[in-house]
Amino acid sequence: MATHSLFLLPGDGIGAEIMLEVDKLIAWTNSEQLTDFSTDSGLAGGAAYDAHQVAITDEDTEKAKAADAVIFGAVGGPKWDNVPYEHRPEAALLRLRKEMAVFANLRPAICYPALADASSLKRELVEGLDILIVRELTGGVYFGEPKTITDLGDGQKRAIDTQVYETYEIDRITRVAFDLARTRNNKVHSADKKNVMKSGVLWDEVVRGIGKDYPDVELHHILADNAAMQLVRNPKQFDVMVTDNLFGDILSDVAAMLTGSLGMLPSASLGAPDPLTGKRKAFYEPVHGSAPDIAGQGIANPIAMIASVAMALRYSFGMIELATKIENAISAVLSDGLRTGDIAQDNRKTVGTEEMGAAILAKL
Amino acid sequence: MATHSLFLLPGDGIGAEIMLEVDKLIAWTNSEQLTDFSTDSGLAGGAAYDAHQVAITDEDTEKAKAADAVIFGAVGGPKWDNVPYEHRPEAALLRLRKEMAVFANLRPAICYPALADASSLKRELVEGLDILIVRELTGGVYFGEPKTITDLGDGQKRAIDTQVYETYEIDRITRVAFDLARTRNNKVHSADKKNVMKSGVLWDEVVRGIGKDYPDVELHHILADNAAMQLVRNPKQFDVMVTDNLFGDILSDVAAMLTGSLGMLPSASLGAPDPLTGKRKAFYEPVHGSAPDIAGQGIANPIAMIASVAMALRYSFGMIELATKIENAISAVLSDGLRTGDIAQDNRKTVGTEEMGAAILAKL
Ligand SMILES: CC(C)[C@H](C(=O)O)[C@@H](O)C(=O)O
Ligand SMILES: CC(C)[C@H](C(=O)O)[C@@H](O)C(=O)O
Repeated sequence: MATHSLFLLPGDGIGAEIMLEVDKLIAWTNSEQLTDFSTDSGLAGGAAYDAHQVAITDEDTEKAKAADAVIFGAVGGPKWDNVPYEHRPEAALLRLRKEMAVFANLRPAICYPALADASSLKRELVEGLDILIVRELTGGVYFGEPKTITDLGDGQKRAIDTQVYETYEIDRITRVAFDLARTRNNKVHSADKKNVMKSGVLWDEVVRGIGKDYPDVELHHILADNAAMQLVRNPKQFDVMVTDNLFGDILSDVAAMLTGSLGMLPSASLGAPDPLTGKRKAFYEPVHGSAPDIAGQGIANPIAMIASVAMALRYSFGMIELATKIENAISAVLSDGLRTGDIAQDNRKTVGTEEMGAAILAKL
Repeated sequence: MATHSLFLLPGDGIGAEIMLEVDKLIAWTNSEQLTDFSTDSGLAGGAAYDAHQVAITDEDTEKAKAADAVIFGAVGGPKWDNVPYEHRPEAALLRLRKEMAVFANLRPAICYPALADASSLKRELVEGLDILIVRELTGGVYFGEPKTITDLGDGQKRAIDTQVYETYEIDRITRVAFDLARTRNNKVHSADKKNVMKSGVLWDEVVRGIGKDYPDVELHHILADNAAMQLVRNPKQFDVMVTDNLFGDILSDVAAMLTGSLGMLPSASLGAPDPLTGKRKAFYEPVHGSAPDIAGQGIANPIAMIASVAMALRYSFGMIELATKIENAISAVLSDGLRTGDIAQDNRKTVGTEEMGAAILAKL
């Protein structure tokens, strides 16, 4: 079995404690000889700032780029509210996304049956929900230049951000979405604001062109504001939704929140396959944040973090069976009635981070 | 009583038939000598394009600027999908917003008790909901330059949109939000993406500064993606939310959809008070679209359109009592069990546009 390298970046807040459960999972898969992972770890976000006065060091960035997959916890917290803008914890994420060129952000929004009642939506609208938001992650208004604040005098300033997309960027993310739709229900919604944005006009033009290469996949255009509404109204009408960086940020959070399973949802960010080796850089992280309010208490939910490892097995290492096994183990402990505090329910047993991690491992 | 001028722009789709109910309402308030409205009307959107090959003529734009208030229906439809970009139906809205300089878009999201079950959210989360989204409407990425698509050769294009905000633009919309919060529950959430956008950094800086002038109003910062999630999770935590043009577009649609009362919701767009007369240009329109699929059948819901007139009475003409009376009449017919097709319910009577308009008038 080939050795695969994982680079672990626990980050801040609950990041460290949920990453411990990943360590245990990896130790187990290695000891069972299901995998042969080598691991290394680094600092990101506030943790890196405290040690090195940057959100992530050049060295750790290089390690992330060299690894077969990066497993990331979460960053941020009030402690770093006043660090210089370019060193704020989120800057680690933005730097890694850009330097690793992981342009395809896959955000599954699935509703675990055992948790359907935790949704703010009526059960029948979310039960069995399984949407995949494919978000462009390395372009758009997050990275476009100019991105400036100018002092105009007389107490006036002007702030500028620039939304830029080129054909090739839209092309590659759209193909990812269509390819994934083929492994699911063959339906893609492309969301933009072409009625007010030129980037939306180009987005739509490119997506329609690529749609011709996938005659077996249903393609729908939807305005981003309507997409947000329709997610709330009737989320099950969607299968795969492809959209830009900023709309993807918002729409994927709405989709995640609908499921009632926010603490359970992983994400994957993938680069382009290397023309020689076929390998793609990859970055896996839970959708939830660093939850500084509950950090260090051993009560954080490790499921999204563990599910992120399952995504890594699936998308980086082709170990579909093991990935599915882990996902089923998560479903099984939930059906058994185990809950962490964030998803606590009457008549269910509330457990801590370690106990939840151990229960999932026990199912494997 | 001073004569007030209304300029009516029914637009496309169901616009004309719901505007007829406005005509009747105005005829009644005039005949009762509650108002002394003079009205004129024009063409907007596809209707204007068919007649004049533009989304709105210069003449109608001037009339809109001269009127005390514009009452707008809705624009758009598949018929005009392929008209040149600068003449697409939405261009009428964008031109009027910009030329009338109605920078403050007020989007109330209220849940009519009789319709709480129509929400996709659980009843207890939306019953009694009353949020006001205050959206900046004449700046940001909708209007910033450059806004271009450039051909780069080799099948590649580059699209650019520019998000621009200056201090004064953020200042004036924020004051509108704080002033309105004082008439409500004294709480403002300001939503931006300051963690990735410079316009968000400036937005937050200006809002915080103005917050100091309103020590009696609670001010909260929230990231726009989190705002979208929190709207879905627990909308009643909000009172007034102030945000930019693009985030406001999406967040106000999410808020509207939550209520289950989308066909019921009006909006107001206000300019700055004239330094001499104190008058402000004003534009009122329903939140819903032109619904081309049901146009001309007499089944469209006129309530949002009628509620838009109530907003005009409140914000342009200081006739708070009459505005409240109309709003109560709407609630009353809903409690009586009358429904248009879009909000049809078992054991309730489904009526057409005219019958609904007449029932509201009968309550007055
Ligand atoms: C932390 C922040 C920079 C980030 C984003 O806006 O992309 C987050 O919201 C996300 O969605 O991963
Ligand atoms: C029609 C469109 C241009 C408009 C917008 O994006 O502002 C609409 O969605 C709205 O919210 O009024």
